[in-house]
Amino acid sequence: MDVDPNSAAQEAAAFFRAAPPLRDRGRVAASLAAFVARHSTGNGGVVCVTSGGTTVPLEQRCVRYIDNFSSGQRGAASTEYFLKAGYAVIFIHRRGSKQPYCRFLPEDSFLDFFELGEDSEIQVPQSHSTVVKAAISNYRKAIDEGLLLKLPFTTIFEYLQLLQMVATSMNCLGHRGMLYLAAAVSDFYVPWESMAKHKIESAGGPLNMQLSQVPKMLFILRKNWAPSAFCVSFKLETDPNILLQKAETALKKYGMNVVVANELANYKDTVVMVTSNGRRTVSRNSKEDDLEEQLTDLLVKMHSEHITQPNSEDHQKWTS
Amino acid sequence: MDVDPNSAAQEAAAFFRAAPPLRDRGRVAASLAAFVARHSTGNGGVVCVTSGGTTVPLEQRCVRYIDNFSSGQRGAASTEYFLKAGYAVIFIHRRGSKQPYCRFLPEDSFLDFFELGEDSEIQVPQSHSTVVKAAISNYRKAIDEGLLLKLPFTTIFEYLQLLQMVATSMNCLGHRGMLYLAAAVSDFYVPWESMAKHKIESAGGPLNMQLSQVPKMLFILRKNWAPSAFCVSFKLETDPNILLQKAETALKKYGMNVVVANELANYKDTVVMVTSNGRRTVSRNSKEDDLEEQLTDLLVKMHSEHITQPNSEDHQKWTS
Repeated sequence: MDVDPNSAAQEAAAFFRAAPPLRDRGRVAASLAAFVARHSTGNGGVVCVTSGGTTVPLEQRCVRYIDNFSSGQRGAASTEYFLKAGYAVIFIHRRGSKQPYCRFLPEDSFLDFFELGEDSEIQVPQSHSTVVKAAISNYRKAIDEGLLLKLPFTTIFEYLQLLQMVATSMNCLGHRGMLYLAAAVSDFYVPWESMAKHKIESAGGPLNMQLSQVPKMLFILRKNWAPSAFCVSFKLETDPNILLQKAETALKKYGMNVVVANELANYKDTVVMVTSNGRRTVSRNSKEDDLEEQLTDLLVKMHSEHITQPNSEDHQKWTS
Repeated sequence: MDVDPNSAAQEAAAFFRAAPPLRDRGRVAASLAAFVARHSTGNGGVVCVTSGGTTVPLEQRCVRYIDNFSSGQRGAASTEYFLKAGYAVIFIHRRGSKQPYCRFLPEDSFLDFFELGEDSEIQVPQSHSTVVKAAISNYRKAIDEGLLLKLPFTTIFEYLQLLQMVATSMNCLGHRGMLYLAAAVSDFYVPWESMAKHKIESAGGPLNMQLSQVPKMLFILRKNWAPSAFCVSFKLETDPNILLQKAETALKKYGMNVVVANELANYKDTVVMVTSNGRRTVSRNSKEDDLEEQLTDLLVKMHSEHITQPNSEDHQKWTS
């Protein structure tokens, strides 16, 4: 079913009108404008990576919310590889999700990674020293060279407002911009005005909830916010039988350049890149490898063609 | 309304029968048994602190879930103060929530806290050095002396199974045991057998969900699992007008020794301890203080009376 442009635009406008306004909007806008301006000249790519799951509050004074499973591993890893490829990265991430260069940390690792030496100086055990040093050094480099801008979100309201701000700011970069939408975004939400004000009481038996559909923002993003950018979206399903069909549909319906199809059971091992020219399976060679290394490598090449020959993509064929 | 013991027991049994079994149950049981055995002699207190929010999966192959807001700050801080007071602590915590001795960490702080020196050695900036050193030293001490057992959970199913295991194991400690139930536990859930197997599809308009009530486990805990322990539960509301009444009701209904009443707007600044002998407000003196220091101090005193004069509590009066 095709999206009706007028009703999609109206639904998006209504969503933003009713959403609680982003805190720190002014500060975010300023740092974003400075970042994009810094990278507006030159030939390098600029990518917006979105990462982690959005929450859907169920109460205005929020105690309960619906969340989407996502550790943020894919977005954090991809950010590292885009930086390595020379991209400037705007990393829109869920608060508390995995961060670039910190992915290697075991859970609750902070204290387990450190010990006090004989003179009470803080030490990292020899076994972890190499990875910790590389992480500190790569992270410092990205920050010091102004190549990484981190913008956090928690709710679906914050996420979509940030995405709109970033995509429209990046529009001035034309084809040099890439949107890499790896965040797990809720399909359903409770509109702010129909939300319970206080914590929902538990005394009255079972709880019935009705959730509305989140407007199809990918369509608006492609059409209005960033029409020239190279757009990569992700589709996650648990049922392999419907996954590729859904990815194909999203590709056409929203005008994406690539839809990356993931299956929950093996998303770390293999994905399928779906484009208008066919499908390409990307698999990692071993458990020690990051799938994101190959994935970003392929996307950087495709994006480079998109920059130099923006109209040639329909003719490019894959042989995978 | 009083709880009917028979139907409460039946509902609890049905919940556990249908719940997906705890992974690593054997390993958890072994470490728990060893911990309790080590502290089964002597006069010291043993407290089970629960912390963080439980999730309610909406799909068996879970992509979406309902979560309860809780950073785990209260549980982590209280654990530190119970350890300082000489208690052995079983810390049942939500994965990824705040951890004892790491509460001071700013978000995503790992890399911001460290730098590489001139000889590429890892350094902590002078400004953070004192707190990081104290944290490492206190944490190591608690672990090395066998005073802290950390058990993680994510879902409501995992949480309640862990709580049952810990409470029943602690029953052999009699009055020396304390349960300090600070976790934010969901009131509603989707029974496993009625849960969607795959990710719920978003194509079909609004989503209607019916959630069942979680059985009143506090009642079962007090009655069957740990009848002699000193039981402290928490009540969080956003509406101050109903908070104390709900705390009073929970106190009587579930036979708690103390219910700590929190209001979402100011739970870090002030709480009310509700007991059968009256109410006592506990407030922190400044933003630099932990409310948990006073709270645990009062509870340790009450628990000490519970140990020496287990039947005298009904006659104890507060003058606050």
